[in-house]
Amino acid sequence: MSIAYLNGRFLPLADARISVLDRGFLFAEGIYEVTAVIEGRLIDSASHLDRLTRSAGAIGIAVPLPPEEIEAAQRQLVALNSMNEGLIYLQFTRGADEGRDFLPAPDLQPTLVMFVQPKLFLNVAAAKTGIAVVTTPDLRWARRDIKSTGLLAQAMAKRIATDAGAQEAWMVEDGHVTEGASSTAFIVTDDAIVTRPYSQAVLAGCTGAALTALAQEAGMTVVNRPFTVAEALAANEAFITSASTLCQSVVRIDGQPIGDGTPGPVATRLREIYVDFARRTAV
Amino acid sequence: MSIAYLNGRFLPLADARISVLDRGFLFAEGIYEVTAVIEGRLIDSASHLDRLTRSAGAIGIAVPLPPEEIEAAQRQLVALNSMNEGLIYLQFTRGADEGRDFLPAPDLQPTLVMFVQPKLFLNVAAAKTGIAVVTTPDLRWARRDIKSTGLLAQAMAKRIATDAGAQEAWMVEDGHVTEGASSTAFIVTDDAIVTRPYSQAVLAGCTGAALTALAQEAGMTVVNRPFTVAEALAANEAFITSASTLCQSVVRIDGQPIGDGTPGPVATRLREIYVDFARRTAV
Repeated sequence: MSIAYLNGRFLPLADARISVLDRGFLFAEGIYEVTAVIEGRLIDSASHLDRLTRSAGAIGIAVPLPPEEIEAAQRQLVALNSMNEGLIYLQFTRGADEGRDFLPAPDLQPTLVMFVQPKLFLNVAAAKTGIAVVTTPDLRWARRDIKSTGLLAQAMAKRIATDAGAQEAWMVEDGHVTEGASSTAFIVTDDAIVTRPYSQAVLAGCTGAALTALAQEAGMTVVNRPFTVAEALAANEAFITSASTLCQSVVRIDGQPIGDGTPGPVATRLREIYVDFARRTAV
Repeated sequence: MSIAYLNGRFLPLADARISVLDRGFLFAEGIYEVTAVIEGRLIDSASHLDRLTRSAGAIGIAVPLPPEEIEAAQRQLVALNSMNEGLIYLQFTRGADEGRDFLPAPDLQPTLVMFVQPKLFLNVAAAKTGIAVVTTPDLRWARRDIKSTGLLAQAMAKRIATDAGAQEAWMVEDGHVTEGASSTAFIVTDDAIVTRPYSQAVLAGCTGAALTALAQEAGMTVVNRPFTVAEALAANEAFITSASTLCQSVVRIDGQPIGDGTPGPVATRLREIYVDFARRTAV
């Protein structure tokens, strides 16, 4: 039985229940993070905790626990669930009010929940074969830098991808790819690795940022600029990054092969570099 | 003690709890409606139930109960809570999965919750004095016609309004007012009552639509077109409509008085007409 964390208590996930008055349920007034676990240790944890704090600040919620206590609780969750490889999901909300009003009572106790999702992703098939992506209009709001639980547009995009036989949707605005429904988008041209700069238009990807730094350390050129769907289709390679996929080649976009339609050397090398970094720096 | 409805059961609101795996909590994959109750009866109920069905269809969720059973449950809630005047809040979500994945399991049981909010709004002071509004950029997603629980942008707008001493925020996009954070926006010019046409850019307001039809029946001219903030500031009158405010004059926008800074005759008359309609057609 999976053990979850809810407001200071460890309990069976099936018993982790919240009030229907929770503002995360009524208003999507919540922030979340997904952290990878490899060999029982947290990957890139400090970066996820930093982003958590930034997201919370942007909507005026204090993070319910200091970062080190969150990390300690996450490590305890890993231990309680004997999870070797998988994900930790964390969400907090402004809390439950006594009724429903757009304006919260001033002194609400935030709701903080965490649970694990055991999942093998180091030796997953998609890492070897690559994935297919479809493009779809980006329907999201203007503050995509906030990792909020308002994810209906992303869920709709994932449905479109699945219905088209793809594994991810790349969202497109004004002709340019913003990002994947749950990943950061990259292409590889003759000159550089290209990915969109962080702004309010996209989420600042923890895995993408780490991978960008690692690529530069390895002597590769990374250019931060928006790219079009046409550029992606003509690229040598394309790939995505996220906590749950690490780095995966995109071998097909809207049904058209990218490069020779198999994972390319840059993405393959970057995945190796990232996994090495993850293992080295895990806590 | 307030009695709520949750998945077929009537129970104390404090006991109405859902799984943290509910997709309404994790992905804001939920639809809601707010229905006014006057003298113990539901106002404009068929219109709210129609919109519920449209919203649900747009995100591919079946409404958990037939409209007549929802209405029956709502009437029962009113009776169980002996509520004479107030609101009924209804929300349903795709339901709780066994884990968290953007793609739901195919056969989830939807979550359906309803609760009451006793509230006097017929003889509320704001109906006599009018309200102040501030304008703020519209940060929302592209499918505002779907009445989803992804309301973080609206909650942020309400906070901005409150901090500025106003009661509502009018959201602005490309120089034009889209709508209020939880209401439909109208202005009254020398020639007509002006309000934005329904599209994916705004929610189709049930109260606004009813009031528009009533105004036309009363011989008033209603023009459906976007209007700018400057037009609103120069208007003879401005007002909002919603289930919870019915029709309220806006007497101040961004600190500037509208007309003579008191509720004007058109909005005042329309409120009377709407309240009469509400009483006549309540179920």
